[in-house]
Amino acid sequence: MGEVMEMENLLRYAEKLFDEVEIAVYRSRDISANVELNEISMASTRSGAVTIVRGIKDKRLGLAMVDSDEEKRVNEAIEQAAKMARLNSKDEKWVSLPEPGKYREKPKPNSELKEASPDTLVGMLVSAIKLAREKDEHVIVAGGESGVSWEERYVVNSHGIDVFQEGGAAFFFVELVGRKGNIVTPGIFDFDARRDLNLNFEGVVENAVQKVKWAYDVKSSRNEEVPIILGPWAISGLFSYALLPAFSGERLIKETTPLAGRVGEEIASETITLYDDPLHELAIEQVIADGEGVPTRKNVLIKDGTFRGFVWDNYWAKVYGTESTGNGKRDLRSGGISIGFHNVVIEKGRRSLEDMIADIEHGYFVDGFQGAHSSNPDNGNFAVTANPAFLIENGEVVGSSVFLIAGNVYELLKQASETSREQVVIPFMNTMITPFVKFENVKIAGK
Amino acid sequence: MGEVMEMENLLRYAEKLFDEVEIAVYRSRDISANVELNEISMASTRSGAVTIVRGIKDKRLGLAMVDSDEEKRVNEAIEQAAKMARLNSKDEKWVSLPEPGKYREKPKPNSELKEASPDTLVGMLVSAIKLAREKDEHVIVAGGESGVSWEERYVVNSHGIDVFQEGGAAFFFVELVGRKGNIVTPGIFDFDARRDLNLNFEGVVENAVQKVKWAYDVKSSRNEEVPIILGPWAISGLFSYALLPAFSGERLIKETTPLAGRVGEEIASETITLYDDPLHELAIEQVIADGEGVPTRKNVLIKDGTFRGFVWDNYWAKVYGTESTGNGKRDLRSGGISIGFHNVVIEKGRRSLEDMIADIEHGYFVDGFQGAHSSNPDNGNFAVTANPAFLIENGEVVGSSVFLIAGNVYELLKQASETSREQVVIPFMNTMITPFVKFENVKIAGK
Repeated sequence: MGEVMEMENLLRYAEKLFDEVEIAVYRSRDISANVELNEISMASTRSGAVTIVRGIKDKRLGLAMVDSDEEKRVNEAIEQAAKMARLNSKDEKWVSLPEPGKYREKPKPNSELKEASPDTLVGMLVSAIKLAREKDEHVIVAGGESGVSWEERYVVNSHGIDVFQEGGAAFFFVELVGRKGNIVTPGIFDFDARRDLNLNFEGVVENAVQKVKWAYDVKSSRNEEVPIILGPWAISGLFSYALLPAFSGERLIKETTPLAGRVGEEIASETITLYDDPLHELAIEQVIADGEGVPTRKNVLIKDGTFRGFVWDNYWAKVYGTESTGNGKRDLRSGGISIGFHNVVIEKGRRSLEDMIADIEHGYFVDGFQGAHSSNPDNGNFAVTANPAFLIENGEVVGSSVFLIAGNVYELLKQASETSREQVVIPFMNTMITPFVKFENVKIAGK
Repeated sequence: MGEVMEMENLLRYAEKLFDEVEIAVYRSRDISANVELNEISMASTRSGAVTIVRGIKDKRLGLAMVDSDEEKRVNEAIEQAAKMARLNSKDEKWVSLPEPGKYREKPKPNSELKEASPDTLVGMLVSAIKLAREKDEHVIVAGGESGVSWEERYVVNSHGIDVFQEGGAAFFFVELVGRKGNIVTPGIFDFDARRDLNLNFEGVVENAVQKVKWAYDVKSSRNEEVPIILGPWAISGLFSYALLPAFSGERLIKETTPLAGRVGEEIASETITLYDDPLHELAIEQVIADGEGVPTRKNVLIKDGTFRGFVWDNYWAKVYGTESTGNGKRDLRSGGISIGFHNVVIEKGRRSLEDMIADIEHGYFVDGFQGAHSSNPDNGNFAVTANPAFLIENGEVVGSSVFLIAGNVYELLKQASETSREQVVIPFMNTMITPFVKFENVKIAGK
């Protein structure tokens, strides 16, 4: 209650200096432990607070950050933001900060994550290293990390927005390298992320060791058209750079998305349904309000292959004359808000990955892509190296390979033919929750 | 004095749990202000402390980090490191933590940097934006930042090392883009970094505006052999990735440096003298002790073209049977020590950049390289895009161009023919202090 009073005082003071103002406080606690070359290399505990003041005076913006939530220091930040607003020029496009909206029910946070100790993580990593080397003596645990984060977010603004949220998540990943005879496999990753401490590290190690085993048999690749199954890590990498930015309303206004004017058009095969769902059961960060306090909602991007619409934050929505979709994401380094996603989900299918592989006479299962970051979201073009990729012959994985795919993400979307019933959380970049997806007749270039 | 007592208590407690132990405390205060598209976008104030405990028990390493310097939390980190050491396996290569050595005289820190306010930086950036747009109405200040940091470092270990250092630095940079008719120039950078607040922002803006003016005249490039002058930013980018790692003693042991067995050999033209000098007058971080408390010194890497030797931290030096050269650098994210540089200096020459340009009938002045990060330090091969690059005809810059250089850094070093009397501090990656350097007969590929 003391905190609420304090925030009211701060807001009241700030209102005197600005036409409109927003104060956002982020408190976090992060514990983590790392592995390097089969040994635990570090355990760490970090915690802190950041307060961001965004005020507008006469259409002039001021933004100040301070790594504290103490009243005195936040007051200083308010004054800094006010000085900055006086020095900046007018943003004639500015309309207003968001008004209050109706939130959905808060998910219950799992408080065991708030008190977790690095010892738990160190223990888990030690067991994982032991397990990996028991399962395959040729394996080196080249890297790995386990972490637990807890975050509290409090956003208020002078129009009455006042929302507090808290929650945590845990993650675990390993990178294995196998050395057998002259063969050194590429780094093989696997991971788990969830909202409790029951990280399935045994499953992660088993999956990774399986992929290393496949990687010992190196098969050449050639130029051909083949069915490929993309794994969650490969999909997340490619879509994050080549596809997802195209759904941003800012890009619609700036004419840098190929989706302009195409709402209602078929842009993918019927297999593909894609949405942003902040409260998805597997989401690692369930939020009812976005970075500027706007209620979040499920936003469908592609429904059975049909493009359904763009996502917006408050600023660009008002410039365009529409409403924020609750996709204002706060960047804690710059303090600013920009359009982003909470949990991008690809709808799952009915059959298992195993059954999907069993159907393929000759094709590939791609675990990861390299080079996806140089994709062009203005048109969807990409050129990536599939590595690690696994050759499928007569329904079974028989070895590993490397090849190139240069194509267009929208052409690829039309080639999608099936999604697996397994869905995996990928906690990098944009958080994605995605099944394994099969694409037909994909042109690959042997390497 | 209270602090010294406290540190002694912590060390005494830690000595009970380890054979050897090191405690390092880093306190910092950072203020900064940013520019985006002609407006101040953010001002921030950050401060904090990190303590790192590195203990060895029976050749087993434990390393724990905590973002605090409070006795209670450091004690927890000591206990975590001890638990980790029990779980790790032996590092048979481990010898010992460093013993005390003799430090040079501490440089006097400039305490005005400790109390600097973001307002100063905001004011400087506002003046810089105004100046840039007065000098050239077609210029946009696309980005920019000014910052002041202050750091206090305290390292103690159970062999008697006990060294405290403090100091600060300030930096300023802008990125300009010119738009004139159909021409949009590439981003043009310029910057200043120093140990006081007298940042020369007018000079930075003048240099950048000059380069933008050159960039309006786009000239085609072709395949040819020409003299080129590399600017400090281009040199720092290329050398940081292609050359400097080769001087690491760890790479000598791991056989990943082309310099193995070549001490005393000529690896560059006589023009090139290269050394790491922590107390250089232009250094932005003057340190008398490295990250593990070993005294720093001036280490000559190349003297008049001749390779003089490798640099070492404590661990790899003892594995090899030599002494640390004071090049143990602490990574504050991983907590670990690895071999690195303090201030890499290229010796300056006698004549001005202007005179060097005046000598060139047909050639280029290269301000920056793209793609240097994919250089291979194992052999010195690189392939980079020179951009921005400026065409010199009959002793004058007449326009801008883009071309490729694919080569080998050691071949390039032999082509060096002159260094300018101006030296510039580049505060990225490794800090470098470097003149403009001319190279003869460089093969370029037109674009």
